[in-house]
Amino acid sequence: MKIVKKIAELKRLIKLVKNKKKIIGFVPTMGYLHEGHLSLIRIARKHSDYVVCSIFVNPIQFGPNEDFNRYPRDFKRDESLLKKEKVDLLFYPSVKEMYPEGYKTYVEVEGLSSVLCGKSRPGHFRGVATVVLKLFNIVQPDIAVFGEKDYQQALIIKQMVRDLNLNVKIITAPIVRESDGLAMSSRNTYLNTEERVNATIINQALIWARDVFYKENIKSPEYILNRMRQMIEDKGGTIDYIAIVDKETLEPVRFVKKGDRILLAVYFGRTRLIDNTAV
Amino acid sequence: MKIVKKIAELKRLIKLVKNKKKIIGFVPTMGYLHEGHLSLIRIARKHSDYVVCSIFVNPIQFGPNEDFNRYPRDFKRDESLLKKEKVDLLFYPSVKEMYPEGYKTYVEVEGLSSVLCGKSRPGHFRGVATVVLKLFNIVQPDIAVFGEKDYQQALIIKQMVRDLNLNVKIITAPIVRESDGLAMSSRNTYLNTEERVNATIINQALIWARDVFYKENIKSPEYILNRMRQMIEDKGGTIDYIAIVDKETLEPVRFVKKGDRILLAVYFGRTRLIDNTAV
Repeated sequence: MKIVKKIAELKRLIKLVKNKKKIIGFVPTMGYLHEGHLSLIRIARKHSDYVVCSIFVNPIQFGPNEDFNRYPRDFKRDESLLKKEKVDLLFYPSVKEMYPEGYKTYVEVEGLSSVLCGKSRPGHFRGVATVVLKLFNIVQPDIAVFGEKDYQQALIIKQMVRDLNLNVKIITAPIVRESDGLAMSSRNTYLNTEERVNATIINQALIWARDVFYKENIKSPEYILNRMRQMIEDKGGTIDYIAIVDKETLEPVRFVKKGDRILLAVYFGRTRLIDNTAV
Repeated sequence: MKIVKKIAELKRLIKLVKNKKKIIGFVPTMGYLHEGHLSLIRIARKHSDYVVCSIFVNPIQFGPNEDFNRYPRDFKRDESLLKKEKVDLLFYPSVKEMYPEGYKTYVEVEGLSSVLCGKSRPGHFRGVATVVLKLFNIVQPDIAVFGEKDYQQALIIKQMVRDLNLNVKIITAPIVRESDGLAMSSRNTYLNTEERVNATIINQALIWARDVFYKENIKSPEYILNRMRQMIEDKGGTIDYIAIVDKETLEPVRFVKKGDRILLAVYFGRTRLIDNTAV
């Protein structure tokens, strides 16, 4: 596995790969890899001849009071996991390489970026869209894979790709969960033992919501969301947002139907966890 | 000359051109072409094997009270001019093709976009950066040529290209002027006979400013700008802005030096004209 830290060097290598007519698959990450990330890499491999993974904790997608500095990092462990997956190239740039002095350009996907996570984290999706666009321009992938745990993020990236006429196909991949149902996340490492146990209620509440719709034919978002809220609060979770929305527009639905998306963000202690499911 | 109106069709053709290892040169325009545009095309030809020109009056770079609807258009004349220049491909999309329903993504180059023309025309450079990025992604040029009459625009495009790691080289080309010195512009067609004569003061004032710096060693921006302002107002011009700025940062200079840029926007009647020169 090649490890490249400089943009110019990466572009040079990518040109050689392109000259060989290889299809490039790309998985951008913030590192501290878990099975969720690895599932994305396996999907990228299926759709391409040359797999590029990036590890970059992107400062511009963190708010001033968020966890950029304490975000977990373990390069050696990540490197060995990626080698096992036979990733062809790891792009591992510094902040200065990505945002040199005098950096000024930002991408905004309007509407989709200002609701749900975007409302709680102003500027977050601007930072995400910007770094993903930069990475796409550097890596020039034919396909890129994003996880559905960050459902809103994947939707925003797809909209950006469509709007900016980018030549990359976005593939999304299902959420990977721990054996007790908690969605895998690098941030799970922040949870203490009690929080870790209680946080399993998030997935249980999502399963309950799907069940009550399909088995009891309940279509009221208010009813479903109130009960979910109660279940989570009973376990000590503090709800940031919880919503049942149209899967494309992210607008709250008046009556729940198949295909709608239930999304939520919940604090356990200081740790903010997100999760979602299709109805 | 191929004329293409659809993005998918253009991408298909560009792929074929790229497969032949041809270098693609690109000149984006809003049409109503004059010698200034043609000079850009000749420069593009010198640096490439395949010249693409686009004609697209970009609605999102016009303010609500600006001249989008009355902006001059003459496709037949443009087509014949481009054929004479042996342009290989003309991209001529509709507004709906470029901004389909539900369009949401915009690019902002901060700082540089909020001064001078950006201050008078809020959102203008956001619209410019967005459409140029889209066109770059569609045409995938190796080089693109921009005129220095839109000096601030060229600077913003260069910053965007650098910041977003785009694989295109930006070339800028000198202002082309009428025989009496007025900078060529599609908007000159708005001027009535009297305004057209009076507007030549713009270039005369720029020449005077350079002369007074080099011949009389005057370094005070205030002195130079006040005299320029007077000269232009005496001919019935209404100054939107006039400034002597650093050629990279666009910040006003305290003392004029070689290489600084003098930029101005002036109304003659309802017509807003821009011009600039290097000191």
